[in-house]
Amino acid sequence: MTNNHPLTLVAGGAGFIGSHLCAELLSRGHRVVCLDNLQTARPSNLQLLEGHPNFEFVEADIVNPLPREILYRTGQFDRVYNLACAASPPQYQADPEHTMLTCVVGTSNLLHLAEAAGARFLLTSTSEVYGDPEVHPQREDYRGWVNCTGPRACYDEGKRAAEALAFDFVRMKRAEVRVARIFNTYGPHMHPDDGRVVSNLICQALSGRDVTIYGDGMQTRSFCYVSDMVNGLIALMESDIDGLEPVNLGNPEERTVNELAQAIFALMDRPVTVTNLPLPVDDPRRRRPDISRAERLLNWRPTMPLVQGLARTFAWFAEELGEASEREVAVMPVAAE
Amino acid sequence: MTNNHPLTLVAGGAGFIGSHLCAELLSRGHRVVCLDNLQTARPSNLQLLEGHPNFEFVEADIVNPLPREILYRTGQFDRVYNLACAASPPQYQADPEHTMLTCVVGTSNLLHLAEAAGARFLLTSTSEVYGDPEVHPQREDYRGWVNCTGPRACYDEGKRAAEALAFDFVRMKRAEVRVARIFNTYGPHMHPDDGRVVSNLICQALSGRDVTIYGDGMQTRSFCYVSDMVNGLIALMESDIDGLEPVNLGNPEERTVNELAQAIFALMDRPVTVTNLPLPVDDPRRRRPDISRAERLLNWRPTMPLVQGLARTFAWFAEELGEASEREVAVMPVAAE
Repeated sequence: MTNNHPLTLVAGGAGFIGSHLCAELLSRGHRVVCLDNLQTARPSNLQLLEGHPNFEFVEADIVNPLPREILYRTGQFDRVYNLACAASPPQYQADPEHTMLTCVVGTSNLLHLAEAAGARFLLTSTSEVYGDPEVHPQREDYRGWVNCTGPRACYDEGKRAAEALAFDFVRMKRAEVRVARIFNTYGPHMHPDDGRVVSNLICQALSGRDVTIYGDGMQTRSFCYVSDMVNGLIALMESDIDGLEPVNLGNPEERTVNELAQAIFALMDRPVTVTNLPLPVDDPRRRRPDISRAERLLNWRPTMPLVQGLARTFAWFAEELGEASEREVAVMPVAAE
Repeated sequence: MTNNHPLTLVAGGAGFIGSHLCAELLSRGHRVVCLDNLQTARPSNLQLLEGHPNFEFVEADIVNPLPREILYRTGQFDRVYNLACAASPPQYQADPEHTMLTCVVGTSNLLHLAEAAGARFLLTSTSEVYGDPEVHPQREDYRGWVNCTGPRACYDEGKRAAEALAFDFVRMKRAEVRVARIFNTYGPHMHPDDGRVVSNLICQALSGRDVTIYGDGMQTRSFCYVSDMVNGLIALMESDIDGLEPVNLGNPEERTVNELAQAIFALMDRPVTVTNLPLPVDDPRRRRPDISRAERLLNWRPTMPLVQGLARTFAWFAEELGEASEREVAVMPVAAE
C-alpha cells in the first residue's frame, strides 16, 4: 500500500466479525491495516483477505505498546476500529487478566493512536455490559446487572471499563468516539470451538454427536447475522452522531435456544439427540436489544431472516468441517454464550 | 531496615487512610514500605511517619512497572495493601484515564508482586461500586447501579474492574486476596481541598466563607472515623476468610448532609451561612453499608461516635489551617462525595 489515501485500522481484524468488517471495508474501497494477536482468529479468515492489494496484516497484541509498523504511520489513520478481544466465555476466561488488560490497556493504546492521528475511534462493546438484565429489552440507558466479582467479570467489567475510558476521551476532547454494544452475532468465520451457542449447536449436530443445551433451553437470545452487524458498525463509524451515547447493535427478534436448535436440526438430514446440562454461572436468561437508537440515528436495522442466515452459516460450517474431516474437530463442552 | 522480618507494602500509604494505616501497622510492630506517587498525598502525612525506624518511603506510580527498590526485595513481602487511587471526584476526574489505569494496571502490578512474593493482597475497593443504589442498605451481593459512561465511571468502573482482576487471581490460585469496599471515611489527614463533604464543610466553615451544600442536603451518607476503618482493614487482611467475597467496611449510622453540617456548625463559635448548589451528575442520593458480613467474619464494627470523631477532625483542621493561615486556603467548589 503506497498511495496516500487514508488508512483504516481494524484491531481484531482477523477474528469473526473483524474479518467480515475488513472484507466489507475493502469492498468499499478503503485501505485496511489489520492488527491482531491471532489469539482466537482463524488463519483462514486472514487468507481470504491477504490477497487484496489494499489489505495489510500486522501481528501484535494491543496490551503491548503499538508496534512501529503502526506508529510510523500514525498520521495516515483516519479510522480506528477496536474489535480486539476474545468474546466467548471459554476463550476470555482462559486468561482473565489478559482479557481485562486487552479491554483497558488495549483500548487506551488505540485511543492514544486515534488522538495522535486525529482519527475517529469505534469501540465494539457488548450486550454483556447489561449482565443478566432485569429489564427487557435492553435500552442503552439501562445500567445493567453485572456481577463484578464473578467469572464473567473479566469481560463484562473490562468492556464497561473500556466504555468509561472511551467516553472520557470524548469528555476531555481527545478523540471522536463511537461505542457499539454488540449483541449475539453469528455467521460464517465463527470459530468452530469458541463455545458460542450457534457454532456449538451446528458443529455438534454436524459431528453426529449429542447436542448440548444448557439449562432448559428456554433462555432467549437475539441473533444478528454478521453482514447486518458489519453494516451497522460502519454506519455508526461514519455517522455524525457525537458525544456520549453508546449504540446497541443487534437483532431484536428474540428466540429461545430451543427454537434456535430446532431451526438448525431442520437443516440436518438425520435425527439429532439433545443432552441438557446445567446453566453456567452468571449466564444471562434473556437478552434482546432495543435498537430504536440505532434505527433513529443510523437508519439501520437487520435485514437477514434467521432461517436464511442459519442456512448460510450451516453450509459454511459443513464445508469447513468436511474439509477438516481428517483432523479431529474439537467441540468444547462450554458455556452457551 | 536491615533485619529479615517480613515487610508490609502499603501502596497509597501517604494518602488519607493510607497514612493512618501505616502508623497503625508501625505501632503494631510491622515493618512498612510505603509506595506513593504523591498525587493526592499531603507531605505532612509522610513527615509524621518518616522518623520511624521501621518505615521506608518509595516514590513511584503503580501504573508503571514497580521500581527496583520494591522488586529486589519481592520475597520479603508478606502483605500487600493497595490503597493507591485518588478517591474524591475532582481529583479522580482531573485525569480520568490515569484513574482507570491506576485501578486496573496498578492493581495488576501489585497482584503480580503478591503472587511472586507469596504475599496476601488486600484491595481497597469502594462503596462507589454500588453507584447510586436502588436497594438500601447495600449488601455485598447487590450488583450496583453504576453508569459506565458517566463522569464518575473512571473511578467506579475502575474499582469494579480491579475487583474482577483480584478475584480472578483467587480463581486462578495465583494469590490470597481480600477485598474491602470502603464507605465514606473521615478524620485527620484528609486533604483540605479534596472536595469530600466532611472536609469541605469544616474547611469552608473555618474559612468564614459561605458553606456549600449540594442539592437540598437530604442526601444521606454514613461516616466512618478513620481509626475504625484502619482497624477494619487490618482485621480483614489478617482474617482467615478466603475466597470470593468482598467485605463492606463503613459505619452503618446514616446521616443527611444537613445533619452533618449542623453537627459541624455546632463546633463553631460564629454563625455560618449556607449556599445550596445543584447536585452533581450521578451523585448518589443514599449510601449506607450493610456490615453484617464484616461483623460476622471479622467481629468488627465502628466504635467512634460521630460527634467525637467530628470534634477531633475539626480540631485537626483548625490547627492545620491556622498554621497555613498565611497561604490562601483553597476550598474547591466541588462535588459532595
